[in-house]
Amino acid sequence: MGDFKLTTVEEFEAATDRLLETGAKVGADSWQLRVKRQTPHCKFGEEGTCCRICTMGPCRITPKAPRGICGCDVHGIVGRNYLRFTAGGSATHSDHGREICHTLHCTAPDGNYKVKDPEKLIRIAKEWGVETEGKDIYDLAHEMAELALLEYGKPFGTQRFLKRAPKHTQEIWAREGIEPRAIDREVATALHMTHMGCSSKPEALIRQALRCGLSDGWGGSMAGTEFSDVMFGTPKPIETEANLGVMNPDNVNIVVHGHDPSLSEMICEYADSKEMIDYAKSVGAKGITISGVCCTSNEVAMRRGIPMAGNFLQQENVVLTGCCEAIVVDVQCIFPALGPLSKCFHTKFITTSKIAQMPDSDFIHFEPETAGENAKAIIKMAIENFKNRKPELIYVPQMKQKATVGYSFEAIVKTLDTVANSHVDEFGTTKPLVECVNSGVLRGAVAMVGCNNPKIRPDQAHIELMKKLLANDIIVVASGCSAQAAAKAGLMDKEARNLCGAGLKRVCELADIPPVLHMGSCVDISRMMVLAAEIAKDSGWNISQIPLVGCAPEWMSEKAVSIGNYVVATGIDTYLGVEPYATGSTEVDNLLKGGLADWVEAKFTVEKDIDKLVDLMIERIEEKRVALGI
Amino acid sequence: MGDFKLTTVEEFEAATDRLLETGAKVGADSWQLRVKRQTPHCKFGEEGTCCRICTMGPCRITPKAPRGICGCDVHGIVGRNYLRFTAGGSATHSDHGREICHTLHCTAPDGNYKVKDPEKLIRIAKEWGVETEGKDIYDLAHEMAELALLEYGKPFGTQRFLKRAPKHTQEIWAREGIEPRAIDREVATALHMTHMGCSSKPEALIRQALRCGLSDGWGGSMAGTEFSDVMFGTPKPIETEANLGVMNPDNVNIVVHGHDPSLSEMICEYADSKEMIDYAKSVGAKGITISGVCCTSNEVAMRRGIPMAGNFLQQENVVLTGCCEAIVVDVQCIFPALGPLSKCFHTKFITTSKIAQMPDSDFIHFEPETAGENAKAIIKMAIENFKNRKPELIYVPQMKQKATVGYSFEAIVKTLDTVANSHVDEFGTTKPLVECVNSGVLRGAVAMVGCNNPKIRPDQAHIELMKKLLANDIIVVASGCSAQAAAKAGLMDKEARNLCGAGLKRVCELADIPPVLHMGSCVDISRMMVLAAEIAKDSGWNISQIPLVGCAPEWMSEKAVSIGNYVVATGIDTYLGVEPYATGSTEVDNLLKGGLADWVEAKFTVEKDIDKLVDLMIERIEEKRVALGI
Repeated sequence: MGDFKLTTVEEFEAATDRLLETGAKVGADSWQLRVKRQTPHCKFGEEGTCCRICTMGPCRITPKAPRGICGCDVHGIVGRNYLRFTAGGSATHSDHGREICHTLHCTAPDGNYKVKDPEKLIRIAKEWGVETEGKDIYDLAHEMAELALLEYGKPFGTQRFLKRAPKHTQEIWAREGIEPRAIDREVATALHMTHMGCSSKPEALIRQALRCGLSDGWGGSMAGTEFSDVMFGTPKPIETEANLGVMNPDNVNIVVHGHDPSLSEMICEYADSKEMIDYAKSVGAKGITISGVCCTSNEVAMRRGIPMAGNFLQQENVVLTGCCEAIVVDVQCIFPALGPLSKCFHTKFITTSKIAQMPDSDFIHFEPETAGENAKAIIKMAIENFKNRKPELIYVPQMKQKATVGYSFEAIVKTLDTVANSHVDEFGTTKPLVECVNSGVLRGAVAMVGCNNPKIRPDQAHIELMKKLLANDIIVVASGCSAQAAAKAGLMDKEARNLCGAGLKRVCELADIPPVLHMGSCVDISRMMVLAAEIAKDSGWNISQIPLVGCAPEWMSEKAVSIGNYVVATGIDTYLGVEPYATGSTEVDNLLKGGLADWVEAKFTVEKDIDKLVDLMIERIEEKRVALGI
Repeated sequence: MGDFKLTTVEEFEAATDRLLETGAKVGADSWQLRVKRQTPHCKFGEEGTCCRICTMGPCRITPKAPRGICGCDVHGIVGRNYLRFTAGGSATHSDHGREICHTLHCTAPDGNYKVKDPEKLIRIAKEWGVETEGKDIYDLAHEMAELALLEYGKPFGTQRFLKRAPKHTQEIWAREGIEPRAIDREVATALHMTHMGCSSKPEALIRQALRCGLSDGWGGSMAGTEFSDVMFGTPKPIETEANLGVMNPDNVNIVVHGHDPSLSEMICEYADSKEMIDYAKSVGAKGITISGVCCTSNEVAMRRGIPMAGNFLQQENVVLTGCCEAIVVDVQCIFPALGPLSKCFHTKFITTSKIAQMPDSDFIHFEPETAGENAKAIIKMAIENFKNRKPELIYVPQMKQKATVGYSFEAIVKTLDTVANSHVDEFGTTKPLVECVNSGVLRGAVAMVGCNNPKIRPDQAHIELMKKLLANDIIVVASGCSAQAAAKAGLMDKEARNLCGAGLKRVCELADIPPVLHMGSCVDISRMMVLAAEIAKDSGWNISQIPLVGCAPEWMSEKAVSIGNYVVATGIDTYLGVEPYATGSTEVDNLLKGGLADWVEAKFTVEKDIDKLVDLMIERIEEKRVALGI
């Protein structure tokens, strides 16, 4: 086991406290302070019982005022709010996917963006029934990009990727009327249904929430993942490091933050060029360090081994180190707080997308056609900012862990091939994994996803849950900020196998993997859907029978609710540590936490006590094993 | 002038009071009671300063808590809420248009839906560059339906109908980057921009609100209007009646309510059949009376002369008459209150659309393929319900006015042809109207639109504003619930010309029109856009120079805000009697009420004092005249 030791949440917090002292010196605000000022929260909002959908109101439901002015009751109001929350997330994820498809449409052999995984492109093309034989790969890329873009707006039919699901799952979707049509249409339908004077029946609203979620998970997000792989390479296991200690005070530090790899890939590409490194040296730096925050970080870690500076609630910390020359962002989960915060330091806060325009930032419009120039301009701006550091403000917590990341579905299958028995096993399947589960060497799996949320002690839930799951021989696949929490703690170091039960430890040793597999960013939860679908096909189980559950203990965004909806609608029970704004209606609450199982064979469980949450998951996995007779 | 006399708002209210007495007898709830219970409203909601976009919150902005937990300031929060409000409206209107396009796709010579105005279809096809020569009209209809549906989701390009605008307007849209792309994409973009950690810059958010609005007015709504005309006929002047007195206690009363004419047209069609009338007689009724509420009413009044029972805040009144056998609804602006209210009477509350599913209703799924059967089933259900009346609850206020409605753009031009001088004038233009404005016989025009809202004494603002405008020789074009307020008062009776100033009176006499022209439902505000565009082309003025303003004194829905955005973005100053939820941010408020003029040559004015509101409009019209030197 050597020197391996997990980093504790207490250590994370001590480092943050030290950084907040720097912040206090320069009068910086912080989320910790803002949480105090915003507490307590409005109960109507938290329970979903406030309606501002028309200007007759706003209306709030109370025992004395049980209906809004239009006559809508609490169940209708809560249901509408829930559906709109989902639509916000679905639109957001899927629009990220759309940008990827547009970028794919701009690929050229000599362009900023190229096809790095032609094999994957051809595989998807065949899946979609597109002729590939003898076709130039860039012609094919453009044709596929157009088809993928039409998935957002085609007038007829349902999502192409639905066919990847097992037959049973497809039948459920058809039976329940939740097969998603064009992605954007499901969003528009959600808004229409929730407009003043439209739907107020919880069943109808929640059904549309599932459909809208599915259009994300098996539509927009899946397109985002698949075509990102085509352009930037399908991830495979790679070494990296995680936590603030990856920032190097001797170097020009550029932090990439957001979600869309089109920006960060280009920054990484150019930051590695001799021209830029020489320029950095010319201003007195030793080199350039790119590190990442949030899902952008997951993207470039998975494909390039770029270190991860931190996750969602650590985004202010990178500025507080005093040695961040530039924090470069694209879309989603970017604190507007970075604007005023960066003004307290020398840091350049660089926004790049029309989707995310923020005050107190430098806006450099990043477009596929000019991506190379844009990236260079950004890196130069950072380098030229090196001289503006205030040495007295520099402090980087010396804290980081090694991590092996890059477990795309394809990489998992390839890893499983290494342990398959060449005499009896097929290659290229998930069967070795199924056998492990079948035999009980692994009890099951948990897909850990989602954000941080100050309502939960940051990272604590992710890490503690994972530790207990591993000890119980339950393998963890993780994405998004959950994956980064694991990496920061050390749970993606292969040495972490020693924290596992005997069965999982053995699997980790044989397959040479860490016990928590980094599957990517939040759109990459689509990879988990593909994995579940393939396990179902390889095992003969329905997805809902697999000893597998989903978990988002610290979620906060609309995207997370969209994800929750498609994960549940795919048949995977999902465990949350934070309540959606839906407890104000018994009908909606009962549907989400119970009734859904009658529709899609899975439901939500919300438990704020994290110890209980993990026990509920283990219990559920064991229940599923019993039901399967394994 | 004969016996002509306007009905006053006091008389409306007396009738309502009498009906509420019936309601009280049976323990019915009413919007009047619910308003009391919901007052006062939440200030954070009313000012737009509450954010529930992620579950770190909800956050509310106060002097002590000037930023949300993510660091978003009040301008970002208010701007996001405003953009989402717009997106809700744009999605809703446009989805109505989409349904129309899908119905067009189902037309057949022997089907439920037919092409009633082939000439208009061919005109639009030519406008879109579609070959029409020698093509079967139904083949053309299907081809056009597919193209129209692609306007919702095409991956590239902007809306086809934008080309209808004058060149100057198109240039503004291009310069400001607000030319709408695919309709649904603008909705999805709006949600993405407002997701946690995306845009918080008011300029960016409001610009997208304009773009999203334009995708409605020059996209989805325009498709809704144009292809409704193709299927159901382009409206032309027709006589009808308005107010509750149109309900006939001797007959089976069916009230159609909602927005999409596909349902109501079919109900009207079959209710007029001998089979149904005989059936009604067999149960003791003298016949069948169809009347309408809200925009559905506008649709069937404009095309069939079906009487208008009332507008938005009168929807409960039709049930309170005690002789409404069925209130049949499709989508939008339908009080969920109708469910429990109908249970206090014998009334059947029949929902028909998956978009608007409500508790306490009978759901009969209405689809183009089965529309005939569905309509018959609904009418039969109403007829069979006749026997269940409680005679002691029957009271119909004997109050109605005559109205001439049906002033589509085409009908207006045709009317103008009747006063054109055949020696000097071109036919088929708006030039006679321009001449009237030029000479000062008409001072200008106001487009009156929008809903009722209990925050304004219902109908009072619509009617009083119109009276004063007419007296000042300002012609009024009206749509939606505003048009119905006018009709109920008597302002669409041609006799109302006697309330006008000398100039407008003369115009009404010569052209044989009422002084308030009924242009249709709320999607039909697209007709007003076409009218403004043609006036601009015929006059040589820019749209923003025309002595024309828009006004929604009693608006309440998200659709109204979407409309406001596209009307302003088209260059028409817009006057509101109710504040959008945006006063909490000086930056957003100043943009909407000032800064927009720098972008699109028009802006919003909000004035709750209705007397002042009309004076501001008259002033603005006179200003525009001065600027034109007329």
